[in-house]
Amino acid sequence: MNTFGRLFRITTFGESHGPGIGVVIDGIPAGLPIDLEAVQGELARRRPGQSPYTTPRQEPDALEVLSGLYEGKTTGAPLALWIPNRDAQSEAYEEIKEVFRPSHADFTYFLKYRHTDPRGGGRSSARETAARVAAGAIALQLLQYFYPKLQILSWTSAIGPYETLYIPSSREEIEASPVRCPDKEMSKQMQAYIEQLQSEGDTTGGIITTQVEGMPAGLGEPLYDKLSARLAYAMLSINATKGFEVGEGFRAARLRGSEHNDSFTQTPEGRIRPATNHAGGLLGGISTGEALRFRVAFKPISSLQQPQVTMTRFGKPTVIKIKGRHDPCPIPRAVPVVEAMTAIVLADFLLLSQSGGYIQKRKEAS
Amino acid sequence: MNTFGRLFRITTFGESHGPGIGVVIDGIPAGLPIDLEAVQGELARRRPGQSPYTTPRQEPDALEVLSGLYEGKTTGAPLALWIPNRDAQSEAYEEIKEVFRPSHADFTYFLKYRHTDPRGGGRSSARETAARVAAGAIALQLLQYFYPKLQILSWTSAIGPYETLYIPSSREEIEASPVRCPDKEMSKQMQAYIEQLQSEGDTTGGIITTQVEGMPAGLGEPLYDKLSARLAYAMLSINATKGFEVGEGFRAARLRGSEHNDSFTQTPEGRIRPATNHAGGLLGGISTGEALRFRVAFKPISSLQQPQVTMTRFGKPTVIKIKGRHDPCPIPRAVPVVEAMTAIVLADFLLLSQSGGYIQKRKEAS
Amino acid sequence: MNTFGRLFRITTFGESHGPGIGVVIDGIPAGLPIDLEAVQGELARRRPGQSPYTTPRQEPDALEVLSGLYEGKTTGAPLALWIPNRDAQSEAYEEIKEVFRPSHADFTYFLKYRHTDPRGGGRSSARETAARVAAGAIALQLLQYFYPKLQILSWTSAIGPYETLYIPSSREEIEASPVRCPDKEMSKQMQAYIEQLQSEGDTTGGIITTQVEGMPAGLGEPLYDKLSARLAYAMLSINATKGFEVGEGFRAARLRGSEHNDSFTQTPEGRIRPATNHAGGLLGGISTGEALRFRVAFKPISSLQQPQVTMTRFGKPTVIKIKGRHDPCPIPRAVPVVEAMTAIVLADFLLLSQSGGYIQKRKEAS
Amino acid sequence: MNTFGRLFRITTFGESHGPGIGVVIDGIPAGLPIDLEAVQGELARRRPGQSPYTTPRQEPDALEVLSGLYEGKTTGAPLALWIPNRDAQSEAYEEIKEVFRPSHADFTYFLKYRHTDPRGGGRSSARETAARVAAGAIALQLLQYFYPKLQILSWTSAIGPYETLYIPSSREEIEASPVRCPDKEMSKQMQAYIEQLQSEGDTTGGIITTQVEGMPAGLGEPLYDKLSARLAYAMLSINATKGFEVGEGFRAARLRGSEHNDSFTQTPEGRIRPATNHAGGLLGGISTGEALRFRVAFKPISSLQQPQVTMTRFGKPTVIKIKGRHDPCPIPRAVPVVEAMTAIVLADFLLLSQSGGYIQKRKEAS
Repeated sequence: MNTFGRLFRITTFGESHGPGIGVVIDGIPAGLPIDLEAVQGELARRRPGQSPYTTPRQEPDALEVLSGLYEGKTTGAPLALWIPNRDAQSEAYEEIKEVFRPSHADFTYFLKYRHTDPRGGGRSSARETAARVAAGAIALQLLQYFYPKLQILSWTSAIGPYETLYIPSSREEIEASPVRCPDKEMSKQMQAYIEQLQSEGDTTGGIITTQVEGMPAGLGEPLYDKLSARLAYAMLSINATKGFEVGEGFRAARLRGSEHNDSFTQTPEGRIRPATNHAGGLLGGISTGEALRFRVAFKPISSLQQPQVTMTRFGKPTVIKIKGRHDPCPIPRAVPVVEAMTAIVLADFLLLSQSGGYIQKRKEAS
Repeated sequence: MNTFGRLFRITTFGESHGPGIGVVIDGIPAGLPIDLEAVQGELARRRPGQSPYTTPRQEPDALEVLSGLYEGKTTGAPLALWIPNRDAQSEAYEEIKEVFRPSHADFTYFLKYRHTDPRGGGRSSARETAARVAAGAIALQLLQYFYPKLQILSWTSAIGPYETLYIPSSREEIEASPVRCPDKEMSKQMQAYIEQLQSEGDTTGGIITTQVEGMPAGLGEPLYDKLSARLAYAMLSINATKGFEVGEGFRAARLRGSEHNDSFTQTPEGRIRPATNHAGGLLGGISTGEALRFRVAFKPISSLQQPQVTMTRFGKPTVIKIKGRHDPCPIPRAVPVVEAMTAIVLADFLLLSQSGGYIQKRKEAS
Repeated sequence: MNTFGRLFRITTFGESHGPGIGVVIDGIPAGLPIDLEAVQGELARRRPGQSPYTTPRQEPDALEVLSGLYEGKTTGAPLALWIPNRDAQSEAYEEIKEVFRPSHADFTYFLKYRHTDPRGGGRSSARETAARVAAGAIALQLLQYFYPKLQILSWTSAIGPYETLYIPSSREEIEASPVRCPDKEMSKQMQAYIEQLQSEGDTTGGIITTQVEGMPAGLGEPLYDKLSARLAYAMLSINATKGFEVGEGFRAARLRGSEHNDSFTQTPEGRIRPATNHAGGLLGGISTGEALRFRVAFKPISSLQQPQVTMTRFGKPTVIKIKGRHDPCPIPRAVPVVEAMTAIVLADFLLLSQSGGYIQKRKEAS
Repeated sequence: MNTFGRLFRITTFGESHGPGIGVVIDGIPAGLPIDLEAVQGELARRRPGQSPYTTPRQEPDALEVLSGLYEGKTTGAPLALWIPNRDAQSEAYEEIKEVFRPSHADFTYFLKYRHTDPRGGGRSSARETAARVAAGAIALQLLQYFYPKLQILSWTSAIGPYETLYIPSSREEIEASPVRCPDKEMSKQMQAYIEQLQSEGDTTGGIITTQVEGMPAGLGEPLYDKLSARLAYAMLSINATKGFEVGEGFRAARLRGSEHNDSFTQTPEGRIRPATNHAGGLLGGISTGEALRFRVAFKPISSLQQPQVTMTRFGKPTVIKIKGRHDPCPIPRAVPVVEAMTAIVLADFLLLSQSGGYIQKRKEAS
């Protein structure tokens, strides 16, 4: 269950305070040129210690390639990537290892496994998302090899009560904000809100919106493997996510069919396309070629810098004040994770689409 | 891609206007007594023609067992169920088979497959959900064999702008309403709204809320196969769904950690449990044993009884007025579908949990 | 576990004495013209009652299409096929249902499932192979759509001690023999041997050899999904099989490298190819484009027409004389089953090969 | 396709001359004590340079644990193991990288991938089997946790024309022979034969026989995932294998039913069991509890120390004399690989069996 994907498949391993985090990517066709600096660049976007709003844990997240590359190109063999842990400080966890931290996975991991690695959350730590980001960067390179105009943009659209409907047109707009909110005014309010929470030892949730431009049409498989279903699956597999919606999402429930339906029209070149895009880029679970649009909700970080009432494993009531080093708001660092999982889902469908859909005769084998 | 599940697996087949709809259920342990009347009862809840608010298509949905039962119990062999189509009227589709119906899957299926069955939407028709309901009824019997107190309740919590937070305690409360809304006052307003839409040839979306009581703890697999991730996957695979949220869902994004965190407490018997349930019954993707709570958003039915501008496959602008027979609101009939997919996901995790988690020594083979 | 394949996937269901046998075939691209008479023709080759050497059970094996075809072509939806049982005579099984038939699956099914369908062997009956044959005929049509010269020939190469190395060049040669042995002289000896066994109430095993001409090169996936590994998997999944070998097979163990190695040479057109084919058409698990050659060993039919000592479920020693209706030799009827499983494996690899291997840029999505 | 297994799953990565070889093992229950020295011991059995009969490449094969262990026990998280390459000498490959070595995978990898790692055979090198051996040692520890008496013994039963039917009763008997043949006399003849081949620059194939004692009954899944089918799949996935047979194997084809059938009898304690074991420990693909017995055929090593005629990628005829460092006979070092794949298959079925078979009521969740 540490594998995701059908033809483009990632298998991740590693814990927060073990030697490192790794990922094996299987299914990449041979001959794909890999830009490792671009992968490292994505890891830099996710890594901690980037801004005053994230955990001070210092991790260079320096990528090592364990297999699958030869002379800069893929070989058809699995591509294995490894990110060593450098700044794991396990002491903070020693004293709380028998205390259930409120709203943490400690509790359910203990119920299920009884014997787990408590240091830094072990396998349940968001540190695992480094592996997703690395794999997503590879997936994006595969996608853009076939579709150079395909662009995945994710950004912070809400932090706590601060929300924006602004849609950016470039990554620069997003990266210009320390909280990855491209709406400049709202970005400032979000920063102020996070500072306030930090001073109170509190945390907040938020929403990440994603738009994929340059989408190929025809990606997605009926019935269970709808593009929307696999995206929902991927997004809800990210730590701290609580919701997913595509197109109008929950708002669609309030609309009439006459408001929500997208009529069909034609481009000047004669290509038939929806005139509007309430659907968010897919119909019947298959991409229309219009921009793919979805939103993901994150709960507040559970590790508060304030005392909380809880229990030990042995049923003793106690009060915990979590030390460790934690983000007050997960959203800015989760932006590249959402982009990565999007790329992984799309790359998987891209490979699937090459062997499905309408049959096309190939020239006979000689 | 017509298979869903890992150990409890369903494979469905059949089209809206073909001979029928079928499902093969694999992975059910041998010796499970099957109550076929209960399965038939669930099909009756989903089938059309139940009330003035649903399509008048008359389908008895009479279940046939093709394999897997012997003397009323499962045998370990795949259980295959078959529901013949009786009232398919394909004429209405003949004249529109080259017209793209707005917001229908016709468009993307044509892009992807070029050759599809146009009658009644073919494979993309919601008629396929009959197979899911039958399989879900079997899954529920498996779940309740191990956990007799486990109860899955889904209900209509919103239709268009009419929304309720009321939580029912029994299925009777839900079934008493023709729109499956247990809030009596709101149910009346919803009915009135649907009648109004019908008179205007319009349609509406809505929201279904689900609560599972009597949940076993420890279901769900890190990392990609979180219980929440598989539920999201399952729900977004249902026709017309646009969103999924668990626990506080999108609302969690607005909350502070100090508001959203669930402290741990103890039952009088000494069992440790969360004192509140903002999480919706899971932490780190694994069930806590508390009630599982999630919501699914549906878009309005796309088949309007009013003229719509669209295009033919050949790029000719046209106006379509869909005949066929369609629901003005998908929600009431989707309630058993949501319950069924919930049961299928839980049954799959139940079987997985029996071979995972903490190792327990069995007595040695003789 | 009643599903086989990764992209071309079959899911079978049904028991020997239930209503029938079915198969859902998923993954077939849309637009493939299906020749149902050819499928029916393959079923006729497998069905019982064809010759004095097979069971007298009379089954027309009349194929019904439950889904997935529209106007004679596939639609991308799952193709479901159904073969009703017509001549099930369960009485013979009633009296022995608590007796373990020697070398039958009754014993292990009982150990594993405790509650199984005893009639005619239930799910473990070779009657299930009808579903494989139907699916294999579809797989072959898919293969030949891309590779019209691809030809799968299987034949009886040994029955008991009677063995031939003759390699036929057409199916006619094979079908001319009632035991499907293309070596005319050996065919007569095999027939005589079977008649002798019948008179003695005994049975025999045998070997089926397969050769696939017109093979595309490059089919097969390293490392675990070698073409040879998937073929071995498929062949050993057929009832009564005890061995698989490819190329020189077990004989390769005796050879020196200098005898077994295939040098490379060139065709007059300049294509590089092995000069000999000791390898049997694959290297490193991937097809070379040369003829694929393998052999499958079958044990003797376990149902003897003579008394055998055995035990009841309750540990009472007893003597069984199996009534029912059984083949004295499984080989002739297993020939189309081996061909079918070969086609299923190859079709699966064909689809996989379209999304793997060397990356080739497609034109950008408009 | 670099993943094998359903619940106990291995994903391997790495090339012969890359940084190392790795494996991610997913699905191991939490709390299993791991004996890393035992794993290292198995690697020592497989590693090169053990005897004059194997390649002189010197690899310590020193195991590193990248994830999944905490305080010596599994945690439910994936166990990742890493074996660095120390003695890769790529120079020998540089000059032949555009030459197809006869009977090597170079040819088909080039046909399929065009861009591959030529150094030491890259991914197709038998060096990958180190990962299998490490994973197999873990699988064995899982199996023996539940079934302490379960013992997997594999041994060299044939090298070239030298063959023995002797069945050893302990690993010591096997390890006492430098060629892992427990028949002392035959072992000497095999050694002499290998020495002769070495002097002639030639190689040989051979056969490995496996016997598993202490087998649990009921392992194996009908129909496609028979224990025999998965074993055949696993064995044919090992480099250089050409055949698999279980029980009497190909010899069963020659036998009469009255010779091959195993009658049922009873132990003094009243347990019903087969009186003989022609079947090799399974019926209908499910284990009987008797000893599991099968044989695997290996072709001769393709890398001869003598000149061979071949072609370059560009169609130029040439003569190759392979330098590198190669075994004259693959069999002795393949013995632990066969044992490992056996353990992996059995561990996978063990986990599956815990969630399948006959349903047993568990006590209700509180």
